[in-house]
Amino acid sequence: MSQLSHLENDTFLRALLRQPTDYTPVWMMRQAGRYLPEYRETRKRAGSFLGLAKNPDYATEVTLQPLARFPLDAAILFSDILTVPDAMGLGLYFEDGEGPKFERPLREEWEIRDLTVPNPAEHLKYVLDAVKQIRKALDGSVPLIGFSGSPWTLACYMVEGKGGTDFLNIKKMAYERPDLLHHILEINAQAVILYLNAQIEAGAQAVMIFDSWGGALSHAAYQEFSLQYMQKIVAGLTRRHEGHIVPCTVFTKGGGLWLESIANIGADCVGLDWTIDIGEARKRVGDKVSLQGNLDPAILLSNPTVIEREVGNILQSYGHGSGHVFNLGHGITQLTPPENAAAMISAVHSLSSQYHRQ
Amino acid sequence: MSQLSHLENDTFLRALLRQPTDYTPVWMMRQAGRYLPEYRETRKRAGSFLGLAKNPDYATEVTLQPLARFPLDAAILFSDILTVPDAMGLGLYFEDGEGPKFERPLREEWEIRDLTVPNPAEHLKYVLDAVKQIRKALDGSVPLIGFSGSPWTLACYMVEGKGGTDFLNIKKMAYERPDLLHHILEINAQAVILYLNAQIEAGAQAVMIFDSWGGALSHAAYQEFSLQYMQKIVAGLTRRHEGHIVPCTVFTKGGGLWLESIANIGADCVGLDWTIDIGEARKRVGDKVSLQGNLDPAILLSNPTVIEREVGNILQSYGHGSGHVFNLGHGITQLTPPENAAAMISAVHSLSSQYHRQ
Repeated sequence: MSQLSHLENDTFLRALLRQPTDYTPVWMMRQAGRYLPEYRETRKRAGSFLGLAKNPDYATEVTLQPLARFPLDAAILFSDILTVPDAMGLGLYFEDGEGPKFERPLREEWEIRDLTVPNPAEHLKYVLDAVKQIRKALDGSVPLIGFSGSPWTLACYMVEGKGGTDFLNIKKMAYERPDLLHHILEINAQAVILYLNAQIEAGAQAVMIFDSWGGALSHAAYQEFSLQYMQKIVAGLTRRHEGHIVPCTVFTKGGGLWLESIANIGADCVGLDWTIDIGEARKRVGDKVSLQGNLDPAILLSNPTVIEREVGNILQSYGHGSGHVFNLGHGITQLTPPENAAAMISAVHSLSSQYHRQ
Repeated sequence: MSQLSHLENDTFLRALLRQPTDYTPVWMMRQAGRYLPEYRETRKRAGSFLGLAKNPDYATEVTLQPLARFPLDAAILFSDILTVPDAMGLGLYFEDGEGPKFERPLREEWEIRDLTVPNPAEHLKYVLDAVKQIRKALDGSVPLIGFSGSPWTLACYMVEGKGGTDFLNIKKMAYERPDLLHHILEINAQAVILYLNAQIEAGAQAVMIFDSWGGALSHAAYQEFSLQYMQKIVAGLTRRHEGHIVPCTVFTKGGGLWLESIANIGADCVGLDWTIDIGEARKRVGDKVSLQGNLDPAILLSNPTVIEREVGNILQSYGHGSGHVFNLGHGITQLTPPENAAAMISAVHSLSSQYHRQ
């Protein structure tokens, strides 16, 4: 008997593949996170974010927390998008209240030439152990999503040492020494392929590539330095495992202008941030891909009445038929009252069935 | 004799109005700035950024500095986008190495209800004096651009106290108390109309509205909270002064997805950041507006060969005919070698004439 049919709830996987579903599935980027008191409690026990992420027991515990609270249609591995460069030896660390940073960003040409593709079984074993353990704990309830940062996004952190800047160092490299940047991106792409395939082998039933900083590039530079490497990854992924398709989602934050080309790289699903109308996006991609998104996470700071209205607007804009995975347009903020997340999930489930009647 | 004909160089104004020109005019956002050693010297004498901006003599001095170095086709008033809320009493200040902040951000409903539209002649006299003095100093060489922040962008700083955040406070207000936010935006729009018209009266020959944070909004929220107020401003502007049209440019950073609706509000020109291909943008707006942009400022950190190639790509993508004002897609970074800015300006002038032959 197939594994998909063993899943109690395969709505998420079906929607990714644009197969019919009874309702629109929903999960939330960063759903295991600081907005949940139980997460903060586990994190306190673990001592730090990396203490959580690098310990498969803790990672399993926090991955399951939002699923115990909310009727979510998917679980996502608790980890960080930057595990790959950490495995390359750059020294991932977190300072309180700030994003991830690297202790040893790439500053010299020899450091770039010395980069090697990490063996996941060796350097990222803690992630694969977590995937196996979470999969076991989920016990066929909902599918498990594995993920990684995109080659460009990893490179941003590797060169700048941190994210969210104006990316002047890496852009200077892109325009003055594109050979060096392409070398980093090629290594990153090979590393992410091995890493995601190892996650799939360990039990991830869908994978997602987070291109958090692709939107900082010009249209031409995006194609050259971000999109073509995501395309390489998609081409190198194990697309069938345990007798089932493993759907792949790519998400470039700020990539709405480039939607047609993103939809063309062979991924099953394209993630959308909240700046684009999902109905317009659907018109632009046609039946090439499914779409994931795209509620502004700030809306979860309002109240259930507003949340229900805004969820309804997105569902209506997407319209009838399958191929929509409801999500936020970016990670849930830590200031979100958990009851507002519950209101969103409930609204998606109750309001969406009308769009799925045959 | 008309004033336009008195200008030695009216290429910029002609391009804004899509009238024929011999070449593509160019100026740079933040062209009077820290990348210039002479600016840093004047700023040292002035003691601070606000010491510069609030003193018409200093403001005139730094406005003219880039024009003494480079054959730019326009001057822009040296000032800040946030002078209006400062005139409302919110207390604009700058900390070293950080963006503008307000001492007294709007936290309480009564503070919002108490906001009043400042009288430019009284509270913003230093700006109007600077405009008059700069205009006199320019002596008809090139046109002078006046500017303000957009109502939404001003409101972001007024509510958050600073820029560049995830805008959670103001978005919570947008979704929970839209009445309060609309009240702020209405006051801001009225204030910006009076302020820009006073700049025009004082001698500004073109005006620009900077919507730095419109791109943080969802497509629907952008229309409601940013675009409709810019439309009100455009409708309220003095469009003719001294017998000439005063062209108006609107620039929403990150607004590429909404280009058609931005081009529809009655402005003469739409500013573009570097994420959009300018040729695509031109196709989308047709002959509704001229376009300003859109080189990634990071490219000015490379070298003249790369800069010339990238300038050439943008000119080629825009193609033949008038209606293009060359600029960066955002302010010039302080790390830019001045000789690279010179290389860009020279490349625009020398490479563009081929696109303007009749």
